Amino acid sequence: MDRRNFTGKMALGASGALMAPHLSWACAPNGNTAQRKLGVALVGLGSYSTYQLAPALEQTQWCRLAGIVTGTPSKAAKWREQYGIDPSHIYNYENFDAIAQDDSIDIVYVVLPNSMHAEFAIRAAKAGKHVICEKPMAVSVAECDAIIAACETAGVKLSVGYRLQSEPYTREIKRLVREKTFGDVLFISADAAYVSRGNPDQWRLNRELSGGGALLNMGVYSIQSCIYSCGKNPIGVSAQEFSTRPEYFKDTDETITAQFTFPGGVVGQMMTSHNANANRLYGSCTSGWFELQPANNYGPLSGRTSEGPIEFPHESQQKLQMDDFARHILEGTPNRAPGEMGRRDMVIVEAIYRSIREGGRQIALDLPEGYGILQE
Amino acid sequence: MDRRNFTGKMALGASGALMAPHLSWACAPNGNTAQRKLGVALVGLGSYSTYQLAPALEQTQWCRLAGIVTGTPSKAAKWREQYGIDPSHIYNYENFDAIAQDDSIDIVYVVLPNSMHAEFAIRAAKAGKHVICEKPMAVSVAECDAIIAACETAGVKLSVGYRLQSEPYTREIKRLVREKTFGDVLFISADAAYVSRGNPDQWRLNRELSGGGALLNMGVYSIQSCIYSCGKNPIGVSAQEFSTRPEYFKDTDETITAQFTFPGGVVGQMMTSHNANANRLYGSCTSGWFELQPANNYGPLSGRTSEGPIEFPHESQQKLQMDDFARHILEGTPNRAPGEMGRRDMVIVEAIYRSIREGGRQIALDLPEGYGILQE
Repeated sequence: MDRRNFTGKMALGASGALMAPHLSWACAPNGNTAQRKLGVALVGLGSYSTYQLAPALEQTQWCRLAGIVTGTPSKAAKWREQYGIDPSHIYNYENFDAIAQDDSIDIVYVVLPNSMHAEFAIRAAKAGKHVICEKPMAVSVAECDAIIAACETAGVKLSVGYRLQSEPYTREIKRLVREKTFGDVLFISADAAYVSRGNPDQWRLNRELSGGGALLNMGVYSIQSCIYSCGKNPIGVSAQEFSTRPEYFKDTDETITAQFTFPGGVVGQMMTSHNANANRLYGSCTSGWFELQPANNYGPLSGRTSEGPIEFPHESQQKLQMDDFARHILEGTPNRAPGEMGRRDMVIVEAIYRSIREGGRQIALDLPEGYGILQE
Repeated sequence: MDRRNFTGKMALGASGALMAPHLSWACAPNGNTAQRKLGVALVGLGSYSTYQLAPALEQTQWCRLAGIVTGTPSKAAKWREQYGIDPSHIYNYENFDAIAQDDSIDIVYVVLPNSMHAEFAIRAAKAGKHVICEKPMAVSVAECDAIIAACETAGVKLSVGYRLQSEPYTREIKRLVREKTFGDVLFISADAAYVSRGNPDQWRLNRELSGGGALLNMGVYSIQSCIYSCGKNPIGVSAQEFSTRPEYFKDTDETITAQFTFPGGVVGQMMTSHNANANRLYGSCTSGWFELQPANNYGPLSGRTSEGPIEFPHESQQKLQMDDFARHILEGTPNRAPGEMGRRDMVIVEAIYRSIREGGRQIALDLPEGYGILQE
């Protein structure tokens, strides 16, 4: 199959009923490489967009940086120059909805503070754009529901910025669990934490903007790790909160530990913190074990099992993630991080906060199976 | 200093008021190597005595296997032959107290099921013998108190079988914490667990004999790890219990997780289980981290820090432990695992069980400082 025919196949894959008509141009087999790539607009030009997503979009095969949305004119000018973005694809938060008429933009990647995810994801869906919400998906289950509904109504695809779902070490763990390489999983431990000593006014430490502290920022990694390392959704959770530097963490949780129960009796424990460094997942199985350490950073990750090291060449995780989502749109490959997965994690986040409020008692979770926990 | 003078110095060291008079022969500078070694009697000839302690006593410099106490005549015969133990130094549980008249025995090492530690430790003390209680020290704080009181009354030394306190990797962690090599400790994680699938009638799974399950057997390692990795005693603990195979673990706890708070806000988490494999301690500090994995087995252990690997030649941990206790008796070096340390851990064990009974609520701990947590 030559490139031309492959592109033609993609066009077929992308022609499903859910695709907004004005997006079909992206798949036109016209031989223009730039046009074959889906156009991504980054909403919010903070450090993650600046240092991770924009560089990754220079490496992606199926998508490209096509637009930006920022409230800061000086950033707009800088990005315009650096990435050659035409002013017609540069928006601010007020005129953002005009992106609906911008055929260069197929995907809107919301990289704003957590409390703004829902508003901009919903506005993006209403504009007929596919949506990536950076993790955590939002600051409540209700907001996740609203985002999912808006994307369903608009017939656009929705993904959460769980880049590790596309990352080889993580996928290897999923494979080991899926294929029961070491038998059944018995116990999972997952820690995701870093020490925050920066500007105390940063949005991550402001509950109104972040929706919560370490749990929202890093804890979702631990939740994800526990679930894909077990291969099932948890059925119960208990949790505890600890505070060491309340003068710095005035408004958001500093350190949280939680314990999960899974179907079949598997136990999981997690820690997340803005006042410690830890970055690991470990799974004990009936006939072996696996470990990633670090497990959640931008890489290179490092892993091993009871039978030896896990080794993959390092690639930009964000590149892999965005190309996966583009292929999901173009070819109908699985959505590795669907909105329902982000919503599930927010159900767990809310249960963890509830357990803490209720003195650490176990909260039952009633989560349907699925969300592609172990998909390839 | 030649060997003769060194031996003489030891005799001085051993001549303190607490030393029972009939033990002084062990230090006589008569040039007889065998007599310079303190005589150890092992009480209970199960697998730990058979495969760990007796072989270690063939390597010790300051003590030797001098007697055995067993209820099984066939074991007595086998050990008599294998180790050349004179029948005059072989006891059973009924005639054990006659060991008081046996000048070959300086130290009684109680290696019986946990619920029998107190009785035999106290009988050993009353017989004027120094005592090592295998871990856990006993099955309740009250029993620990009784053992400590009996040893004080008898003027004999008391140690708990925390062999890792004498082990180089563990001592290196204590040094890193003591010297603040990586600054202040922020977070500790310690897991100690193995999968039990053997005889369901083994004493470890019988609460009447064991006093508890994974927590008593392996959990004390995690408790120890958390404390020496932090350098302080905890001020609070919460805990949860999980059961997967109740048909096998009919009588004792299978999996327990616990969370510690320490002075200054340090957080610790631990997991112990008879239904998973995990063996690790990890400490996150303000300017680095340390890890042992495995942390608690018979070795060789393996460790690393944020600055590189920790490496020591492997030696029998039990050899190091027993020689340390012998030197404590002979020379007055620090007791690396005093009875008060074992009692402290039982206070924590009881608080963990209490937290579980009370739905995971945090239990305050009022433990005095000390117990040589960070001693060299």
